[in-house]
Amino acid sequence: MADQFDGHGRTPLGAVPFIACMAIVALAAAMSAAKDEDPLPSWSDGARKDAIVAFVRDTTTAGSAMFVPPEQRIATFDQDGTLWVEHPIYTQILFCLDRVPAVVEARPELRMQEPFKTVLSGDHAAIARLGLEDLETIAGATLSGMTVEQFSVEVRQWLARSRHPRWDRPYTELVYQPMLELLQYLRANGFRTCIVTGGGQDFVRAYAHEVYGIPPEQVIGSAGATRFEIDADGRAVLVKEPKILLLNDGAGKPEDIHLMLGGRPIAAFGNSTGDQQMLQYAGTGGRSRLMMLVLHDDATREYAYGPANGLPDTRVGTFTQALADEARTRDWHVISMKNDWLQLFPFDAAP
Amino acid sequence: MADQFDGHGRTPLGAVPFIACMAIVALAAAMSAAKDEDPLPSWSDGARKDAIVAFVRDTTTAGSAMFVPPEQRIATFDQDGTLWVEHPIYTQILFCLDRVPAVVEARPELRMQEPFKTVLSGDHAAIARLGLEDLETIAGATLSGMTVEQFSVEVRQWLARSRHPRWDRPYTELVYQPMLELLQYLRANGFRTCIVTGGGQDFVRAYAHEVYGIPPEQVIGSAGATRFEIDADGRAVLVKEPKILLLNDGAGKPEDIHLMLGGRPIAAFGNSTGDQQMLQYAGTGGRSRLMMLVLHDDATREYAYGPANGLPDTRVGTFTQALADEARTRDWHVISMKNDWLQLFPFDAAP
Repeated sequence: MADQFDGHGRTPLGAVPFIACMAIVALAAAMSAAKDEDPLPSWSDGARKDAIVAFVRDTTTAGSAMFVPPEQRIATFDQDGTLWVEHPIYTQILFCLDRVPAVVEARPELRMQEPFKTVLSGDHAAIARLGLEDLETIAGATLSGMTVEQFSVEVRQWLARSRHPRWDRPYTELVYQPMLELLQYLRANGFRTCIVTGGGQDFVRAYAHEVYGIPPEQVIGSAGATRFEIDADGRAVLVKEPKILLLNDGAGKPEDIHLMLGGRPIAAFGNSTGDQQMLQYAGTGGRSRLMMLVLHDDATREYAYGPANGLPDTRVGTFTQALADEARTRDWHVISMKNDWLQLFPFDAAP
Repeated sequence: MADQFDGHGRTPLGAVPFIACMAIVALAAAMSAAKDEDPLPSWSDGARKDAIVAFVRDTTTAGSAMFVPPEQRIATFDQDGTLWVEHPIYTQILFCLDRVPAVVEARPELRMQEPFKTVLSGDHAAIARLGLEDLETIAGATLSGMTVEQFSVEVRQWLARSRHPRWDRPYTELVYQPMLELLQYLRANGFRTCIVTGGGQDFVRAYAHEVYGIPPEQVIGSAGATRFEIDADGRAVLVKEPKILLLNDGAGKPEDIHLMLGGRPIAAFGNSTGDQQMLQYAGTGGRSRLMMLVLHDDATREYAYGPANGLPDTRVGTFTQALADEARTRDWHVISMKNDWLQLFPFDAAP
């Protein structure tokens, strides 16, 4: 600070009024902007938008009975189906399937073994029929054996060259514009916005900062073990192991939030039964809470699924009738993608 | 946690002018202090202090070849023996031993079982002879069965009433003044200062903010599993389980740093073989690195131990000859408590 003053060569007597003046200008601008600028332009006017704005106002207004100090302003977000498209299948599974040829190249003994044989066959129907255990075998083989740094590079390279078949766009563009606005709005009000995903922690961390503005330490996900070793160049590295350490789904979500952050969220956002316990955990911690579930009811702009709405169940996030009932009982908001979101993706026309 | 806030009932109306006033006072103080104040007054002039100041200058000066952007400025600190006294035994073990009567009250079948019987006997010599396995059994029984919030309260209550026998002061006062200055100096320069301890994560998180200014999410420690449940009042809680999830020592330190932070530290501080891999991990990640080990060679003001210095080995952190040799080879600094630190504890006279 002193250096800046000395270095500029201005008479420090003049610099102080200048800074004070700038501060006043900035303050005035913020005050006028606060009045006219809508922080959530992609959200329809209505109960959901009102609830978000009221929650942020109440928790950040000194003197409010609902005031929450900044260090306790933790908001947690599921990723698949809450922040980005999860249909027809989780993006990370596609990454794993695409890595199978490279893994088989390195370990030829897997070529004739299932489920690798089916994946290599290119038979889409057969691949779509693979069960959970098969997918876990594939995940174990394709998400291990490299250093954590190499893995991060591979994820970013894959994301750069892969496209969602429906939109022919990178998966990282298929993020929901209203949720990007919500993340930004919360952060501007002193919240930490954390991703709490059933997906792989190392996978999501590879792009979360660029795509969501969320740094690695605020991404909590399923995690495999790593093995510390000194490589041939004398460098200490962590090699990804085919062994699950955290399965970050259902009750695992609040458990891992405690492990990683040591605090209870005051806001939580999800879209399926895998998020139920996270919303319960956020919701029963005290006053000043906001819980929301995204309902995929927009077959035109995205997809419509989830038995809660009489919509078909799928292999991705399940919004059951029981979850819909619990949402009603506990005053969790259900976001209708069709009605509450005016603009769906960043590349769509602004409302 | 939020209940605490709701319950405090301070007048937030009064808080704002107070905070504004404090900010102005702090700003004025910083402006006048920047030029003449030594950020490390408890450190002797010499190689260690010079290395710290040079490292901070190089990593934070835009345009420097060693510049590191703020989000990568991670510094990790072992706790026991690095930030506070670990002799004659780790503080957390005393906490566990003191909890045994309460545990036996709740589970009378343990009264006649070892090692609980020995602990209850009050025979100090016999207790001191308990092996690692016994201590693990005691830890499992005394660090589980309550919610994470209850546990945090119990830790704070115990720390408030317990005293170190040598100084007759709370353990939380037996922190090293030079390290408090270093933590503050690094944070003032955009670093995140993280504790990476073999001790219990929930234990250290209960006081780390108050004692070191380090928030819960920047405390990485050994961790037990928790079990999510809905309690009798309908509240979602996490109950501590007698099951180890992370053993944060040795290779576990870099592995857990990756798990919790997703980044590699550029500075690391320890005092024993349990910190070796953490320092290797920090040290081989690139340029602009600082690694330091505290050598306990001050029998007058604290303790002298560690075979590296021809000092006796103990049951706490071991500074072996091999570690001393590695420090020399890898250009890790060894801090002599006796020579490099002018003032040891915050309650000692300032130099």
